[in-house]
Amino acid sequence: MAGIDILFLSKEDVESLDLGLPEIMDVVELGLKAHGQKKVVMPSKDHLALAYPEKLFNILKGYVEPVNVAGVKVIGDFQKNYEYGLPSELALITLYRPETGAPFCILDGTLTTWMRTGAVTAVGAKYLAKQKPRLLGHIGVRGTAWYNVAMLDLLFDFEEIRVTSKRPESRERFAGEMSERLNKRVVVKETTEETVRDADIIIDASRLLEHEVLVKDEWVKPGALIQPYGAVLSVAPTLPFTVDKMFVDDWNQCQKSQYGQFAGLIQAGELRDEHISGEIGEVVAGVKPGRESQQERILFWHKGFAVSDIVLGNLAYQKAIEKGVGTLLSYYREPRDM
Amino acid sequence: MAGIDILFLSKEDVESLDLGLPEIMDVVELGLKAHGQKKVVMPSKDHLALAYPEKLFNILKGYVEPVNVAGVKVIGDFQKNYEYGLPSELALITLYRPETGAPFCILDGTLTTWMRTGAVTAVGAKYLAKQKPRLLGHIGVRGTAWYNVAMLDLLFDFEEIRVTSKRPESRERFAGEMSERLNKRVVVKETTEETVRDADIIIDASRLLEHEVLVKDEWVKPGALIQPYGAVLSVAPTLPFTVDKMFVDDWNQCQKSQYGQFAGLIQAGELRDEHISGEIGEVVAGVKPGRESQQERILFWHKGFAVSDIVLGNLAYQKAIEKGVGTLLSYYREPRDM
Repeated sequence: MAGIDILFLSKEDVESLDLGLPEIMDVVELGLKAHGQKKVVMPSKDHLALAYPEKLFNILKGYVEPVNVAGVKVIGDFQKNYEYGLPSELALITLYRPETGAPFCILDGTLTTWMRTGAVTAVGAKYLAKQKPRLLGHIGVRGTAWYNVAMLDLLFDFEEIRVTSKRPESRERFAGEMSERLNKRVVVKETTEETVRDADIIIDASRLLEHEVLVKDEWVKPGALIQPYGAVLSVAPTLPFTVDKMFVDDWNQCQKSQYGQFAGLIQAGELRDEHISGEIGEVVAGVKPGRESQQERILFWHKGFAVSDIVLGNLAYQKAIEKGVGTLLSYYREPRDM
Repeated sequence: MAGIDILFLSKEDVESLDLGLPEIMDVVELGLKAHGQKKVVMPSKDHLALAYPEKLFNILKGYVEPVNVAGVKVIGDFQKNYEYGLPSELALITLYRPETGAPFCILDGTLTTWMRTGAVTAVGAKYLAKQKPRLLGHIGVRGTAWYNVAMLDLLFDFEEIRVTSKRPESRERFAGEMSERLNKRVVVKETTEETVRDADIIIDASRLLEHEVLVKDEWVKPGALIQPYGAVLSVAPTLPFTVDKMFVDDWNQCQKSQYGQFAGLIQAGELRDEHISGEIGEVVAGVKPGRESQQERILFWHKGFAVSDIVLGNLAYQKAIEKGVGTLLSYYREPRDM
């Protein structure tokens, strides 16, 4: 045997690859389609909770047939990391060859998590939003928010974008920077009601520690698509039952992983199979219908899954090889079989 | 913040640390004790099966309070890896700080898995074998076998060691090398019966793909300790019910992880709580009695758990820092909060 090498990509390496929004969205859509075609192996993510909800790790794993790569992501969720000047979610992705189980790439997953989450938001809207949505209402300005807004605007070129968050200084900063990048005005609102009422697409990327209703049921207008994906319930708990259709990313995982937006409703036996219209991958793959009228109120809940991390991690790996980015590590030279 | 670095240790780096058998056994015993004292967080390992049992990954995770480290191990089990000149189990361990979730060490876990498995075998025997065991019977000569036999002999200085395995050439080679290392004769037997009958300690480290009875019930004599730990049932299925005591490493994991020696009996509802005398950590911690007479037949089943990987991985990390071994990688320099 020739020995095994691993390519290591730091967070700064991943940044330097300068991945484009369209290619990120394309590869994530490919992953969703593979999921819908059952061309993946993906047990539920699970968790290592040192203290819930302040200190925990989420562990995601899977295999994606069209790219022929297996992968594992370990991502922390440490709420007090700002005290150390760190993001709450530091992530490490490891990629493996499905023939031997040999690792071939280890990369920072902090940035790619934001990217893939934004891409699932955007691809979800591509398939589930009404035609020509003109108003985006976005709650939350951290981490994934940048990618959500930038990718959605790339798809829809909104007439109006409204954002809000708890702290005035961070929402002002976000709106300022986004306005510049998108070359259009991003409007700051003080309340969630002003942000989401009348919106065609509502994204709730809030990160609560305790349940709070940031979006009331009646604020979601006919024809709207709403995507709340925080770990803690942040919308009216009636929503899954009053919308016309509810989609998820992976229903098995929604039922097994004990955390997340609607986990409590599932555990209470209230949110069940019959409330779920399908998985987004099934819609992307054409196996199930998505939106069928301009009046439907649609809820799409993505908990986030390994398939997206693997396809995007693999894209980063391929780009890094092309561009000569990263550190090549000797992992295993000579067998030692005793 | 100062940025985050990760120390990378290849398989050759880990080898060069030249960890001693006593220090490996000590740190693994510390882990078992912490487990028995409930000073760990350890959900069940779980699995990513591309094709069972030929191609799968086991994913182990946990946190060990006395060393204050969290960790994840991804270990392949790819039965055809010999075709590539690779061991069937290639493993990667990542260690994390429990304050922030930041990774600080990535190391090859292939060697440490063999080491920690051997150490659990040995520490298990330290607490559960009869006084002055004189005859060791060992089935299997791959991977963990070396550490099992070397560590057990270090503890007990056996009068006789018998080994067997399927292929004559590998068992002869193993016995030859072990005889030299231990400076005592290691006897090769052709059959498992000759190997384990009369043995005070029976270790079954076989790696079957399909159930086969390598150890019959009546071959386990009064006073014997038997430890079978392959992924597939390799002993008489009656054993858990005829022995005087059965111990496991982690009963929760035994019930939740769907693979392993006695998993079928658990899934069938036959092997239940009332058959389990305790976990080895409870015995090490003095919370539960181990062996109480020289006549007891005792069965100890260790599936292998994250706690051992974490304490041993952390020992390797500390040694590497002391000795200046490994590659220091810049993982995360400047926050990027958009």
